[in-house]
Amino acid sequence: MSLLVIGTVAFDAIETPFGKTDKIVGGAATYASLAASYFYDKIKIVAVVGDDFPTEEIKDFNNHHIDTEGLQVKQGEKSFFWSGKYHNDMNSRDTLATELNVLANFDPIIPENYQDCHYLMLGNLTPQVQQTVIKRLKNRPKLIVMDTMNFWMDIAMDDLLETIKMVDVLTINDAEARQLSGEYSLVKAAKKILTMGPKYLIIKKGEHGALLFHENHIFSAPALPLAEVFDPTGAGDTFAGGFIGYMAKVGTVNFNNMKNAIIFGSALASFCVEKFGTEKIRNLTEQEIKARVQEFVQLSTFDIK
Amino acid sequence: MSLLVIGTVAFDAIETPFGKTDKIVGGAATYASLAASYFYDKIKIVAVVGDDFPTEEIKDFNNHHIDTEGLQVKQGEKSFFWSGKYHNDMNSRDTLATELNVLANFDPIIPENYQDCHYLMLGNLTPQVQQTVIKRLKNRPKLIVMDTMNFWMDIAMDDLLETIKMVDVLTINDAEARQLSGEYSLVKAAKKILTMGPKYLIIKKGEHGALLFHENHIFSAPALPLAEVFDPTGAGDTFAGGFIGYMAKVGTVNFNNMKNAIIFGSALASFCVEKFGTEKIRNLTEQEIKARVQEFVQLSTFDIK
Repeated sequence: MSLLVIGTVAFDAIETPFGKTDKIVGGAATYASLAASYFYDKIKIVAVVGDDFPTEEIKDFNNHHIDTEGLQVKQGEKSFFWSGKYHNDMNSRDTLATELNVLANFDPIIPENYQDCHYLMLGNLTPQVQQTVIKRLKNRPKLIVMDTMNFWMDIAMDDLLETIKMVDVLTINDAEARQLSGEYSLVKAAKKILTMGPKYLIIKKGEHGALLFHENHIFSAPALPLAEVFDPTGAGDTFAGGFIGYMAKVGTVNFNNMKNAIIFGSALASFCVEKFGTEKIRNLTEQEIKARVQEFVQLSTFDIK
Repeated sequence: MSLLVIGTVAFDAIETPFGKTDKIVGGAATYASLAASYFYDKIKIVAVVGDDFPTEEIKDFNNHHIDTEGLQVKQGEKSFFWSGKYHNDMNSRDTLATELNVLANFDPIIPENYQDCHYLMLGNLTPQVQQTVIKRLKNRPKLIVMDTMNFWMDIAMDDLLETIKMVDVLTINDAEARQLSGEYSLVKAAKKILTMGPKYLIIKKGEHGALLFHENHIFSAPALPLAEVFDPTGAGDTFAGGFIGYMAKVGTVNFNNMKNAIIFGSALASFCVEKFGTEKIRNLTEQEIKARVQEFVQLSTFDIK
């Protein structure tokens, strides 16, 4: 039994009102696998980097019990690079540069060793590649979680709809839920999206928390109100990684466990934004996570009989 | 002991994507007192209308145990009138007409009979008038809740700051909290506003719920995700009325009771938007309110030890 994470492993250069970074390690699979590693210890990654990717960064994955056999290192090529600048409100950003590099021809090869996958996290990537991974697994995983974004809705909607059909949980933000469904009301949007394939839909609302939809059930998770958001990069991937990591830990797929998984994912995401890049989520303790989750409990508990 | 509500009692003409109304009864004090009436039966209102205001509407207040001795009826004058048109997203609106009429010279006279006020709801009005009401009460109420809006921040900030000093609970929306404090982060905004006088701050976030701040405590209340928002007019006033009505019912001012009061206020507001104007909140049953509150419990409960 293992948790397979696919997505980008890449370099980011980030500018926020609080400062800017040189090239630092980022990417959806990086954030998601690091977050999941706090809950589950059989994590395997499928991704591609160039020979510019530091060996010590790969070792750091391994230190988090993340198997990197499926991390292809392309000699003579460069890793995917994204650069962005956040506005003062930290809710919007401009992309300054996107260099696909190795990602342009990414063929997600699944090592034989990875065929024991029970939990599959499809981090944000071309829907075509996400779909290929599902098809290459000999047994369908017990739980497939897919993250995606408006970019793919704009340029690859047909592929996206094909891929969505094959997953259990879809995670998108509120604007994306509206775009995908053509409905403004999130209740109507969710109802429509739940007919497209996924049995569960998570709508991420950033500082407003997240909504989980399943059949006629809705769960509303709060976000932790933060005094400072230092760098929002990777928060969504961290959320998804924490979510599926917790689900892999508890092992039973149901609505109640998913509610808790959303709280744990939100807690991990709340750490993520406190420092640049992956800095904060590389070195968390169990104690810190427990205390943060208790803050969520405090935040949302009321007592009406 | 009584709950005094001040604010507008007026006419609205509303246009939404679902239809439009002729002049119907609205106003902050109308919504707030009707909402409060489901929790408390000694409600008194101070407001002003013209002789165009229907007698049967005043009787309907009385049917809800709302004392209208303080409702001034100005002969030969017209009631306050507001007309607005909501955009498709129902989150923004254009004001089509504002006719102050009787409101232009509103002097909030407090009948002697009203001096037993223990709970005071200052519905949205000129801060100057809100302040006058506080000063005219011989004994300071046990709980003063004040609702206001960006309009007064734009044109009467000094008066607003003076009035805010005198209240216990301030209810504003997120944009207004940012405007009032000059801080983007709601945590920082709340910290600043809590030094301006109020001991409690409620930040209303519409479809994203509400946040309650007090000392170092934060409570995050969800909003009920709705398939249809028919008419948002009065939702904030209904929320505030439900909130203070519940507080008057339980009688003890503390953070835990306020958390519940926010849930009851949110439940009432969720009814309000289901029909035009006050239609829905005039005829609720205890059973309906109880069931709606249970939906909020279901929506936000998770079980992490």
